[in-house]
Amino acid sequence: MLFNQQFLFTPGPTPIPERVKLAMNEPMIAHRSKAFSHLLEDVSKRLMPIFGAKDPVLLVAGTGTSALEAAACNIVEDGDHVVVIVTGAFGDRFANICQAFGASVHRLNIEWGKACEPDQLENYLKSLDVPIKAVFATYCETSTGVLNPIKDLGTITKLHTDALFIVDGVSCIGAVPVDMEDWQIDILVSGSQKALMLPPGLAFIALNQRAREVVKNCRTKRFYFDLNRYLTSYYEETSTPFTPAVSLIAGMREVCNLVEQEGLENVISRHQLLKSMLRSGLQELDIPLFVADDIASPTVTSIKPNENSIAPIKQGLQERFGIVIAGGQKHLKGKILRIGHMGYCTPFDILRVLTGLEMIQSSLLGRNILGKATAKAEEVWSKNV
Amino acid sequence: MLFNQQFLFTPGPTPIPERVKLAMNEPMIAHRSKAFSHLLEDVSKRLMPIFGAKDPVLLVAGTGTSALEAAACNIVEDGDHVVVIVTGAFGDRFANICQAFGASVHRLNIEWGKACEPDQLENYLKSLDVPIKAVFATYCETSTGVLNPIKDLGTITKLHTDALFIVDGVSCIGAVPVDMEDWQIDILVSGSQKALMLPPGLAFIALNQRAREVVKNCRTKRFYFDLNRYLTSYYEETSTPFTPAVSLIAGMREVCNLVEQEGLENVISRHQLLKSMLRSGLQELDIPLFVADDIASPTVTSIKPNENSIAPIKQGLQERFGIVIAGGQKHLKGKILRIGHMGYCTPFDILRVLTGLEMIQSSLLGRNILGKATAKAEEVWSKNV
Repeated sequence: MLFNQQFLFTPGPTPIPERVKLAMNEPMIAHRSKAFSHLLEDVSKRLMPIFGAKDPVLLVAGTGTSALEAAACNIVEDGDHVVVIVTGAFGDRFANICQAFGASVHRLNIEWGKACEPDQLENYLKSLDVPIKAVFATYCETSTGVLNPIKDLGTITKLHTDALFIVDGVSCIGAVPVDMEDWQIDILVSGSQKALMLPPGLAFIALNQRAREVVKNCRTKRFYFDLNRYLTSYYEETSTPFTPAVSLIAGMREVCNLVEQEGLENVISRHQLLKSMLRSGLQELDIPLFVADDIASPTVTSIKPNENSIAPIKQGLQERFGIVIAGGQKHLKGKILRIGHMGYCTPFDILRVLTGLEMIQSSLLGRNILGKATAKAEEVWSKNV
Repeated sequence: MLFNQQFLFTPGPTPIPERVKLAMNEPMIAHRSKAFSHLLEDVSKRLMPIFGAKDPVLLVAGTGTSALEAAACNIVEDGDHVVVIVTGAFGDRFANICQAFGASVHRLNIEWGKACEPDQLENYLKSLDVPIKAVFATYCETSTGVLNPIKDLGTITKLHTDALFIVDGVSCIGAVPVDMEDWQIDILVSGSQKALMLPPGLAFIALNQRAREVVKNCRTKRFYFDLNRYLTSYYEETSTPFTPAVSLIAGMREVCNLVEQEGLENVISRHQLLKSMLRSGLQELDIPLFVADDIASPTVTSIKPNENSIAPIKQGLQERFGIVIAGGQKHLKGKILRIGHMGYCTPFDILRVLTGLEMIQSSLLGRNILGKATAKAEEVWSKNV
């Protein structure tokens, strides 16, 4: 491998900016100190626009799945009926978590690679004749690269049920628009290691007043993930109930600086550009896209080369260029490849991955297509500068 | 404050060695990669001597309390009788966690500042006429600086019950001897931000075969902390069931390097030396020790100055020298101060904190005792070099 460099294009963990590393390496501080309270309050509030939240965002030490669990175990009680929209592996995980906590889970299974269309949810909700406590949805389904139409799904949920609308935003928040109030989202969770440019280990939970009432009355057995403890500690002491992930929170402050300096809207447009550049380039390489344009996420792109090419492409990228992409999950293993492009990722990174793909595809196809994909991507970029 | 430097002497989080920071800042790697599997296996195995464990140590993304919860919610079922030895705030937390998961908790309450003596446990166990599923103990009680006689408590537990013996080693593992088999410990947990010299965010769970059987059959509702998932993932795929805290695990590998280079026995002796130096010095300053010598932890030392001196000492250290120590917790708030000296801490650090205390006590007492405590500590050190 050239220079032993490695370029991470997995859909999380993602590369960490140098400035964020330096912030995480500031001398450790005591977590029961004014300095930490200031840090916690600063970060919790500056996350609000990123989450489209009206209240400070709670921080829990744990990875993405811990955020999903916090969203479920504070709401779901034994025997509650919940609907989980399953568009891939992480919708499936949400359903499994709800099931683990005793819910009667109604899975709305959507073909992997497709989004849940609003009328699919509408028909499904109409078909159920039990009261639904919550509807769980995945904003970006990391396993396929599909972005579900959360705003519309929220509208349908509220039109047909009294349920809470709970959204997994792990692999997109920080890179996509969201407005909890306008979109009728009651709980929105995310993790640190995706578009938020941090190492894994910090979970984010934004919840509105209505969700807080349900959390308060939820009798499900829990301790570490009991959000009442985090709410009390935050509002009464600007603190956390248990030792927080201090260095990651310090890193998050620097991520907020980065996002504010670029401008959240520009961050969101940049991800749209990365998506367009990559998809346009891929089409020049005869590599089929797995997900349709209008439902494709700006953070992760799935491709479906013919099955004989899957291993050569993935290994070739890694061995020849140090470029790491991800394979498919569950029944899509060996069927698709996934390229992450979120957080600390620029148009030059897209050109990098397309360069590698051009060279590999030229060998695999037996014809010279060097420069084709990068030229196309540059064309897209030049229209956006 | 001089140079705006800060010296952290809290009983966790603790300072991070530069080499460990550099290791955590290595470029992020994909968690579903061979590189990560190698890292995970390496760390899980190299933690075995530190935990006195016969099997690889499990790693969970979360802070200390998540380790306690994992130790409880994988064992305790609704209505189970458990004994929790409560010698301070963290014993109390263990009891609260067990209670949150539905256990019938028998608290053996010991006066804070004292250790649980084996015959206290013996009498208590004899007084109970219900089958006990598990006995929970705290090795180092962080809130007081007491080190409980775990080996003897294990012997008593096994003599009088069929219970599992479950130990919280959060604020001492890595600095004290332990042997799970010889001491009859079934589960031993710890966290990253104490003697293990990492930022908070990584939890460690060592469990023997007998505990694994109980975990397998435990029906308590859980998902993220379900250790069966971690065991399966580790033994079948050398992986983790959910995204792991990659950077902290990379840091842990460097901590293993540091511990192995110094030698685990030397690390343990160094902590004994730190304890002796600090306690000897404090006695020269007319600052009463809160805990008797033979039960005092080598990782944290509590002092009990007269109550009027508590605030001047804590604030004086912070404002004049940038030295951060901790106050008391719960009913010991305003009554004691706690000085952490674990992990990345050397005799020179003890001299630093004693220097600050000498200067402050000279003012408070109105007599010059400069050099008294440091000289005494140096004397202790010189006998150990």
